[in-house]
This record gives sequence, structure tokens and C-alpha cells, in this order.
Amino acid sequence: MQGQSGYSGIFITIEGTDGSGKSTVASLLKKYYTKHFPDVLLTREPGGIVISEKIREIILNPDYKQMDAKTEALLYAAARRQHLMEKIIPALQKGKLVICDRFIDSSLSYQGIGRGLGIEAIWQINTFAIETCMPACTLLLEVDYKIALQRIMSNPMREVNRLDMEAEQFHKKVSEGYRILKERFPKRIQAVDATQPIEQVVSACVQIIDSYI
Amino acid sequence: MQGQSGYSGIFITIEGTDGSGKSTVASLLKKYYTKHFPDVLLTREPGGIVISEKIREIILNPDYKQMDAKTEALLYAAARRQHLMEKIIPALQKGKLVICDRFIDSSLSYQGIGRGLGIEAIWQINTFAIETCMPACTLLLEVDYKIALQRIMSNPMREVNRLDMEAEQFHKKVSEGYRILKERFPKRIQAVDATQPIEQVVSACVQIIDSYI
Repeated sequence: MQGQSGYSGIFITIEGTDGSGKSTVASLLKKYYTKHFPDVLLTREPGGIVISEKIREIILNPDYKQMDAKTEALLYAAARRQHLMEKIIPALQKGKLVICDRFIDSSLSYQGIGRGLGIEAIWQINTFAIETCMPACTLLLEVDYKIALQRIMSNPMREVNRLDMEAEQFHKKVSEGYRILKERFPKRIQAVDATQPIEQVVSACVQIIDSYI
Repeated sequence: MQGQSGYSGIFITIEGTDGSGKSTVASLLKKYYTKHFPDVLLTREPGGIVISEKIREIILNPDYKQMDAKTEALLYAAARRQHLMEKIIPALQKGKLVICDRFIDSSLSYQGIGRGLGIEAIWQINTFAIETCMPACTLLLEVDYKIALQRIMSNPMREVNRLDMEAEQFHKKVSEGYRILKERFPKRIQAVDATQPIEQVVSACVQIIDSYI
């Protein structure tokens, strides 16, 4: 089944608040599909694209407390565009299964709801960036934002960035943002209970992705 | 007379192709108005704003030949937003005369026409960035693009950036872009013949600006 992206490959995104377990799930999905699908690309924004990495460095620099919310939103859209053009679209053109950790819904949720810029405004600058290349399916890993925050803070490997430093209220809004998006895009966004044991989370994701292959 | 920006200050922008003499004219205007107006801010994007400077470094890096036109447009809008919020708006709120070397019309012309992304699309992401803070007046320094290019290339002080390296065709399109904008915004955009001796160019600019003070 062809993805909504318009290319022969299948474009899947994974979303959720920080601490929802996206990275772990994504790497386990890669392991699974590498055995079951001829060609898989697991990526995450900024995806090793030098221009996007440089943009990301500016966004996450903890010193830039004066960064305006709209500047942040435009920078995310710019990094997304470059990653899409250099990495995602070429893979989709080759017929690959592309699993991307975070995409447009992160901006809709973090900047649209979390920063209060509104879903419509963020949608508009992001559709400028991605045009019609929308994921066929988005897996939303759901976990209470307080549990997610605890997971982040208790992870000694994680370096705190500018967004981690936001007040709890911000993370709560982002979490609510994802709930709003789930209601708004009920076909595309498929929720997965991320409080389950990791094997069950992955298994639920596989079941959903398989229906698009 | 209050500028269209909605603040008590007066917001003037200077536009034109590279090599049209904007920087020289801007500094002479500053010299003039420092004597004739209580408080003047001469600025240019990225305007010494650290976040905008960092964004500009990415945009102009000659190594990033793979940069997509839409990435470039979003980065300019991001840098513009931060410069506006940190420098231009606070000055306008204090009632200053703000003269800014390049603003939204540069993006409309360079990315909208030069890169072929269209004026409408560039307008949309830039109005997200600047909202209603438009200049009361825009001075467009007009000079044949070939003469402007010769001026750039014969300036030994100038370090060549990614945009300078574009083909002559690109600079021709940008120049045409400014002509289109002039027709589209006949009240706001005031053309000045920049092939005149510099004193006459400055004098023409002063005459226009004075009508807004």
C-alpha cells in the first residue's frame, strides 16, 4: 500500500512527549523490520543532515533563553525541510520503509499548543516545508506526562537541553496537544499505550505498521 | 506620523540588490538623522542579535551547496523574527526612527522570485514572522543588476558568500523581483535612482523619510 507521501516507499512517523520511549521503540522496530522488510530507514530529526544538525544546535542551546517561540518554530520547520529533502524523500523514492522519530506533529504539539502559537499557524509554515509529504501513519506513544518527565530526569545519560528546562506546565500542554491532534487526525494518528512493557508496545506498533505494508 | 508598524517609532527599510549601495546610503542616513532626529537606530539583519547571527552563518556558509531553497527561506524568516523581537520592536516602542538595511522585501525578491518559490508563499511565512510590523516606507535603491554585480566583484573587501556565487541569471531575477514588488506596493515602496552620485541618492532618501517624520 502506497503511503500518503506520494512516493513508492512507506512513510511512518513516531510521536510522543520526551520520555515516552520513542527512541527505544524506534530502534526495536528497526531491528524487527530489518529482518522482515527488504529496505528500512530509521531516522530522526535532524537525522545526521549537517545543515539540520547546525540548526538544531541553535534551537537546543541552553544559553539562548531569549529565543522567541516563532523563531523556534521557523527553525524547526527549516531543519525538517532539509532532512526531508536530503534523506526521507530519496529513501521513499527508492521504495523504502521510512520510520522517522518525530515529524510535523511535534511542531504542532510543542510550538502550536505548548508555546501557544496555534495549530493552524504551525500547520501553515510546516506545509510550506513538507508540501504534501505527510506520513501514511503516525504512531503516538502515550504516557502520562508526569511519568515521562520522571523518566527524562532520572536518565543520567541525557544532557539537559533548552526544552527540557521548561516548566512542568509546558510539558503538560504538549501532552494535551498530542491528544488534540489524535482527535483531529483520527485516521493517520494511531495511539499506542506506552506504559505497557516494551515488548508489548513494539508488538502493537508492528501490528499497525504491517497494515500499511 | 506613526508608522504602519503600530508603534510610536518610525520604521523605514532600505532594499535593493547587492551592490546597489545600501550600506553606504544607510550609514550616511544615520549620520544625517543623528543630527536631525532625537533617537535613531540604524540596523541590518541579522543586526548583532546572537541567534540571528548564528542562523545567518548557516545560510551564507559557502560549503552548504545542498541547501534547499525552502530551508533558506525559513532560516531567513527565523533570523528576521529574532532581530525584530530583540532589536527593532523595542526601539519602535521607544519612539525611535529605525532604519533597517533589508527586511521582508529581500525575502520576497530573493527567495520568492530569485529562487522561484513565489511571492505568496514567502509572504505567508514572513507574516508569521513579522505579524503586522511592516515598515511605513521602503526605499528601493535601483541600479542595473549588471552594474551592481560589477560593484560587488570589484570590491576587494567583500568576502564571497553562498548567494554571491549564484549565476548571473539569479541576480537578474532578484532585480526583476524588486520591480514586481514596486508595482505591487506602490505606496510603501519608493524607488530611488541609485546610479546618481551618492550625495544625490542620500538627499532623495532624506526627502522621502522626512515625509514620514
